[in-house]
Amino acid sequence: MTEAIDMINLLGQRAKLAARKMRMIDTHAKDEALQTVAILLRQNISDVLAANALDMKAADDNKLEAALKDRLALNPERVEMMAQGLEDIAALPDPVGAISDLVYRPSGIQVGHMRVPLGVIGMIYESRPNVTADAAALCLKSGNACILRGGSEAIHSNRVIANIFRLALHEAGVPEDAVQLIEQTDRALVGALLAADEYLDVIIPRGGKSLVARVSADAKVPVIKHLDGICHVYIDKAADENMAVNIALNAKTHRYGVCNAMETLLIHQDVVSFLPHLVGDLIAKGVEVRGCEKTVAACKDLAVNLASDEDWATEYLAAILSIKVVESLDAAMDHIATFSSGHTETIVTADYATGQRFLHEVDSSSVMWNASTRFADGFEYGLGAEIGISTDRLHVRGPVGLEGLTTQKWIVLGHGEVRS
Amino acid sequence: MTEAIDMINLLGQRAKLAARKMRMIDTHAKDEALQTVAILLRQNISDVLAANALDMKAADDNKLEAALKDRLALNPERVEMMAQGLEDIAALPDPVGAISDLVYRPSGIQVGHMRVPLGVIGMIYESRPNVTADAAALCLKSGNACILRGGSEAIHSNRVIANIFRLALHEAGVPEDAVQLIEQTDRALVGALLAADEYLDVIIPRGGKSLVARVSADAKVPVIKHLDGICHVYIDKAADENMAVNIALNAKTHRYGVCNAMETLLIHQDVVSFLPHLVGDLIAKGVEVRGCEKTVAACKDLAVNLASDEDWATEYLAAILSIKVVESLDAAMDHIATFSSGHTETIVTADYATGQRFLHEVDSSSVMWNASTRFADGFEYGLGAEIGISTDRLHVRGPVGLEGLTTQKWIVLGHGEVRS
Repeated sequence: MTEAIDMINLLGQRAKLAARKMRMIDTHAKDEALQTVAILLRQNISDVLAANALDMKAADDNKLEAALKDRLALNPERVEMMAQGLEDIAALPDPVGAISDLVYRPSGIQVGHMRVPLGVIGMIYESRPNVTADAAALCLKSGNACILRGGSEAIHSNRVIANIFRLALHEAGVPEDAVQLIEQTDRALVGALLAADEYLDVIIPRGGKSLVARVSADAKVPVIKHLDGICHVYIDKAADENMAVNIALNAKTHRYGVCNAMETLLIHQDVVSFLPHLVGDLIAKGVEVRGCEKTVAACKDLAVNLASDEDWATEYLAAILSIKVVESLDAAMDHIATFSSGHTETIVTADYATGQRFLHEVDSSSVMWNASTRFADGFEYGLGAEIGISTDRLHVRGPVGLEGLTTQKWIVLGHGEVRS
Repeated sequence: MTEAIDMINLLGQRAKLAARKMRMIDTHAKDEALQTVAILLRQNISDVLAANALDMKAADDNKLEAALKDRLALNPERVEMMAQGLEDIAALPDPVGAISDLVYRPSGIQVGHMRVPLGVIGMIYESRPNVTADAAALCLKSGNACILRGGSEAIHSNRVIANIFRLALHEAGVPEDAVQLIEQTDRALVGALLAADEYLDVIIPRGGKSLVARVSADAKVPVIKHLDGICHVYIDKAADENMAVNIALNAKTHRYGVCNAMETLLIHQDVVSFLPHLVGDLIAKGVEVRGCEKTVAACKDLAVNLASDEDWATEYLAAILSIKVVESLDAAMDHIATFSSGHTETIVTADYATGQRFLHEVDSSSVMWNASTRFADGFEYGLGAEIGISTDRLHVRGPVGLEGLTTQKWIVLGHGEVRS
């Protein structure tokens, strides 16, 4: 453990120094570095694929699950996507240095905010080599230094990608230590990283629930995290039937394994007549429907299973939907307050007062009115890129783009003013 | 300990319910509640003073320090100040519900931010009864529910103030449980509060360093905190002598015991000629000056002590100043990067490029140019009220007003849009 701590302290010191230098690096140099990474990735694609082949061989030897192997695998198309992703991030506006709300105060001073990098970001993620490039690029563009810890199964791929990154930083005159990969797979290093509050300003875990939960429980450093996505669509009594069915179908069936998919549908008792139409379409698309007793009664000719209490608290991430008939807007919002994970909820209604109440009173990172939950996404919101979706309340909520990787400081411009 | 946990869970459940109801309470009701508290405080001043007399009697019996007793004591003037403080907070604009950056996206949806309360705030503070009213008022105005834990020496005063608050909330139709005081002085309750991450969204400690350090170390709930204020003034070679002397004198001598007072003066070697004038004025005001060797040499006829390495890392909060002569802007920023607590630093210079570099490269919650560090204050910045100054990097930095007690959610307004 002492060795692990020493190693992390060394990386931490280098990162802190790099983060300080990053405050002097202009947008052009950061963009040039990112473009150079893209060029070098394409030029060195055979090295990248050879390293990935070593990881895939080890994955075979260790009988890794097919889904994990799919995420681990690189091919020319995926490397090209990685390179294009870097160019996209280079093309985004730089959030750093932006000054806002600069106003004169009665004392004569001007006071405002300047957007600045967070500092040193620790990234802990699973065995997906593309995350190495993506996370490093987002941290770099937002002016931060990062320490990357990817899943050990991807270590060969990650090493090559990180080396290409550091070479490009060097060429562009950006401090190399702005991107550091933990090259050892020793698990004690993760523990040491989570405790390194002297060096790290924030840790961002990217991956499944168990990874995120473990990081959150153990970290002494602040964590920006995403937990469950138990998202609800509420069809109000004043909903248009076609709009309601379209939104519910899209929210459930557009993609199943994503955090912004609907997991529970709430519907006002006055419009249960929508259910046969909607449930029929869902079942036709292969969705298993689990409903409350009223749902089952409303869909007598359809194969609807009776939902258990557990269903309301379950993030299926699969072709399963629970449906509950509610008596009122308040009952819908009570259900959401009890079971929602605070990710995304949407109401379908043509009634102004009802929609306004939902918008104000539902406490989720995204609250929508007449739109599919599937829009809760950094690209759809116009962030250009997304490092994840935060279900925390402090600092940043919902889709996290470059701005979420920055903070603000106060700036004061005076002419010699003193306090009297 | 089980009893303490049960008690905190009960308060937490009530607070969570109140926080949900608070999202439906409009500005008028919140303001009316605050104005009613002010009226009731004035009407019941004899009860408040009688309760405070019990606390003061116990303080005498327990031989409390004079400084602590001074903070604990109430009198008619202090109660009136409390009441006026409440009226001031009632008069501030309500940050909750403000919608910003609402834009159309290519998909047709409108996306923006809505400002919303944090939820449930735990306040842990020392034996200052005025903090009970002040903290409760700021939490209430920002739409939060709060659980207050004041120092046990003030328990009688706090109970009366909290009861008045709850009576006023009731009269104004605001949920009483939006303000709850922990009425028992059992220390286990603090431990249980710090662990109550199921109910609390944030904990704000207010008080001395040891209190804040203890809360930060033990809390499982996110903490907004203020640690040290080791603030620097850097007098550049391009500084105007009179401006430099005025700012340095004000930053040091306007008040000694405050976190935004200068603790170390850095001065460029080309303008050490300013030192005899400045140091003479400081000594005349009763300040002890501890300088580096060059400072001592530049002030031969003045009583300047030689600074030790420890001085650069010390927050005096007293009539003591350390002075260091530096070779360059970079040397000044190196010193700041090493020793600053990240609170407030200021540069005095007439040179544009030098000032711009300082403004961008110094990483503190407030960075100033030609103004006294003493301006780092919620009232001077125009926040209207201040719950404290954050030296954290995430969520909120520097003076924290009502907005710092809120967060934002994404809102989406659609017309039936779905993802394709």
